[in-house]
Amino acid sequence: MVASSSQLRVFKMGINTHQEPVVYMRGDCDVCLSEGFAASSRVGISSQGRSIIATLNISSDETVPKGYAGLSDIAIERLGVAQSDLVSVHHAPYIESLSLVRRKVFGHSLLPAEMARIVSDISAHKYSDVEIACFLSACAGGRLGFDEIVALTQAMVNCGQQLDWPGVDRVFDKHCVGGLPGNRTTPLVVSIVSAAGLVMPKTSSRAITSPAGTADTMEALTNVRLGLNEIRRVVRETGACLAWGGAMNLSPADDLLIRIERALDLDGEGQLVASVLSKKIAAGSTHAVIDIPVGETAKVRTPGDADRLASLFTSVGAACGLKVRCIATDGSKPVGAGIGPTEEARDVLAVLQGKRGAPEDLRSRAIMLAGHLFDLADGRGVKEGMVKAERLLQNGSAWGQFKRITEAQGGQRSLGEARFRRPVLCSESGTIVSIDNRRLARVAKLAGAPASSTAGLRLLATVGDRVTKGEPLYELLSDSPGQQDYALAFNDMGPAIFTVKREE
Amino acid sequence: MVASSSQLRVFKMGINTHQEPVVYMRGDCDVCLSEGFAASSRVGISSQGRSIIATLNISSDETVPKGYAGLSDIAIERLGVAQSDLVSVHHAPYIESLSLVRRKVFGHSLLPAEMARIVSDISAHKYSDVEIACFLSACAGGRLGFDEIVALTQAMVNCGQQLDWPGVDRVFDKHCVGGLPGNRTTPLVVSIVSAAGLVMPKTSSRAITSPAGTADTMEALTNVRLGLNEIRRVVRETGACLAWGGAMNLSPADDLLIRIERALDLDGEGQLVASVLSKKIAAGSTHAVIDIPVGETAKVRTPGDADRLASLFTSVGAACGLKVRCIATDGSKPVGAGIGPTEEARDVLAVLQGKRGAPEDLRSRAIMLAGHLFDLADGRGVKEGMVKAERLLQNGSAWGQFKRITEAQGGQRSLGEARFRRPVLCSESGTIVSIDNRRLARVAKLAGAPASSTAGLRLLATVGDRVTKGEPLYELLSDSPGQQDYALAFNDMGPAIFTVKREE
Repeated sequence: MVASSSQLRVFKMGINTHQEPVVYMRGDCDVCLSEGFAASSRVGISSQGRSIIATLNISSDETVPKGYAGLSDIAIERLGVAQSDLVSVHHAPYIESLSLVRRKVFGHSLLPAEMARIVSDISAHKYSDVEIACFLSACAGGRLGFDEIVALTQAMVNCGQQLDWPGVDRVFDKHCVGGLPGNRTTPLVVSIVSAAGLVMPKTSSRAITSPAGTADTMEALTNVRLGLNEIRRVVRETGACLAWGGAMNLSPADDLLIRIERALDLDGEGQLVASVLSKKIAAGSTHAVIDIPVGETAKVRTPGDADRLASLFTSVGAACGLKVRCIATDGSKPVGAGIGPTEEARDVLAVLQGKRGAPEDLRSRAIMLAGHLFDLADGRGVKEGMVKAERLLQNGSAWGQFKRITEAQGGQRSLGEARFRRPVLCSESGTIVSIDNRRLARVAKLAGAPASSTAGLRLLATVGDRVTKGEPLYELLSDSPGQQDYALAFNDMGPAIFTVKREE
Repeated sequence: MVASSSQLRVFKMGINTHQEPVVYMRGDCDVCLSEGFAASSRVGISSQGRSIIATLNISSDETVPKGYAGLSDIAIERLGVAQSDLVSVHHAPYIESLSLVRRKVFGHSLLPAEMARIVSDISAHKYSDVEIACFLSACAGGRLGFDEIVALTQAMVNCGQQLDWPGVDRVFDKHCVGGLPGNRTTPLVVSIVSAAGLVMPKTSSRAITSPAGTADTMEALTNVRLGLNEIRRVVRETGACLAWGGAMNLSPADDLLIRIERALDLDGEGQLVASVLSKKIAAGSTHAVIDIPVGETAKVRTPGDADRLASLFTSVGAACGLKVRCIATDGSKPVGAGIGPTEEARDVLAVLQGKRGAPEDLRSRAIMLAGHLFDLADGRGVKEGMVKAERLLQNGSAWGQFKRITEAQGGQRSLGEARFRRPVLCSESGTIVSIDNRRLARVAKLAGAPASSTAGLRLLATVGDRVTKGEPLYELLSDSPGQQDYALAFNDMGPAIFTVKREE
């Protein structure tokens, strides 16, 4: 509904407001006066058939010339306009679906059609950041029922691109719900199972609240920004890919939600299931294995929580036509030694190449997950699947397959090194009895991961190791002195990340 | 915790970002590079002992000069800096209380000390808008327990200014939870009970989600922006005042919360109780009557909801040392004929002056509420209190007292007139059986209320009236053609605001 509108010319503000379009208008401008706009209201802007909703900031006379409306980068991009183009500015249409969000906040359940309207409006960029934050908070903490999660999943699939794989019966996928720093099994599992001929076109996300997502790690090793046609070609050539899913518009609403989830460091259960499954379904998968690490400081804290989440994944998957198997794994300590995109890539390469000193825990987790995928495919049991996976890793087939995949994606990159390295020392002697995954992950994030690919840390000791006072526990890696200082300050503040029990 | 910092000069952007400070930094600026800042991260800015947290927008080279950091209006105001002053820019301190907000989102209860830390950080402007939205959404919909509401109330009181009234034993107050357009009894009740000698230093808020709050309405009639000393003087002189509470920093966290509540059109129960009672307690009140209108399209929809809310108000009040009496009233239709600040003020004056045609429903509600306050004060029963209230209104005492109050606040203003008036016609003949308060309020808001004082509407027919097709139902009042068109478009869209039942 556009009730009235007035023309202004575009003034490029040169301001990056991320995914929330902002328009900067003079308080004395005719349109502001005649339309009665006030700071922080939402306004509609249209040009040549395209229109967006933007948040209004009132500007002074010096900032925006008379007769112009200043636009932030994303507003210009989404409207497809250039400096001095004419745009019409009007009251934002009333977004009816926001009343459904309020119903949800107040504890009412959403019907599938209602969920679809909300998700469709979000993916059409009609919600402001605070409105998205409200929706996410209302859905987090177990507040989405089964039917709502199914509806959210389907709605997210429906409003984006969907892949299909003509001529392929079964398409395999795997996922880890995260919360465990360094648990980078995906590149290993994809290499192993596709070496055996299973089709596994893996699209991964970037980190939400962790120091690295699989896409971040793979980007340290090769090009992951593949378009749909490139993905089809890579999968045709190799039976697999290791790409970033975000470039493909597979679940555009999810991408918008994830940015606010990240700002809030919030990752709700129903939201998580819908986010993961919508991308799998949109990617055309038919079978998926999901790794759920369980530990006091992992994302999932108790076996009971893991069971509930597993049953949600399996049942929502079934309702959406996707066969899901969940596996609860040890989430009590980090996996491998590297944390952060580049350092995790280093561990992955070491396992694939069978290097001495390659992290055994990472290797055995990958073999176990690959074993489950083989069992899903041929029903010969997990044990036989694991033997097969072990063999493909040992005889170099998986490493060869990984090289084929990265070659097809644009060639393998050599890994960089962080500019600043600093050992963090143990403050007392004894045995390490636990590591706080969350605080360790936060150190890696404050050091700059994942935005800085080489930032993060490398563990030099883990749970069960005996350590001596003054011995390094990990090496902190960063690309700016500010981030290094900030991460070290966090390490020194609050509860210890490594719990060391003194010898009796 | 400030881990490191770097100096830049202030560049005034001339942009009003409301209460969320924004800093605009060049992507190539040394500080951005060395600190590893990215768009939408939160950064700390300090100058001469003051410091703020701001949201970062990355700007192009043309927008901000090299060596400068652009600051929005509120950032400049809160830092107390001028163009070209040096500021140091650093990573935002980690706000530990945000992890408590996440615990709340995930369904855990907050302890009093935890609630106090959150509220204290909010009132210190440490939360971004999306973080405040998350907190509000996590608390809305009945998700605050009794102890949490008490803790929230106390925390809001503690982080602001508190009034006391030396030599006065009992301080009276009243409040309406809203949801009923035109229900502007406060100026009447204050005039009546203070005419009888009760002390009633009334501080009111502006509209949250309605077309007018009492402060908006009173501002059409007199100056409401009183400082603490002025309030003391007015109360000393007249026994009462009718001021805006927001200028007094009575509950600064609440003011920050209310802005986001308004953007989200969200007004949760626990939040509501804490917001109302914190301001009463901070204002030094000892006794309060709370009007809870109940109706299908009022804020409170069923008698059961009203009972629950009443019991919450009473028990939380008792826990905080405030005697509260709640009264459920008819919330099925608007009160009076005017909706919007100036039009509601017109109705208030008509009742005080005993004008023919003054809205009888508004008058009788005020008498009833004043009767309850008299009963709270002397225990002689509500009936006798109402007789007393009726007399004070009829004999001109209340009107005289209202004039004394407005005189002491700076003199009475004459009411303005809206620039654009448009009758909205009935589309069929019959009897009006109901009015949708929410949609009617939205029409008044879209017409410009409360930002435009004269905007809103004047009802020409109400529930029970017989109407003929083509007859005007109400007159729409606005100060800009854009707002008029927008309000009319909303009136025409969706379900009818007036339900007219045809004659059989």
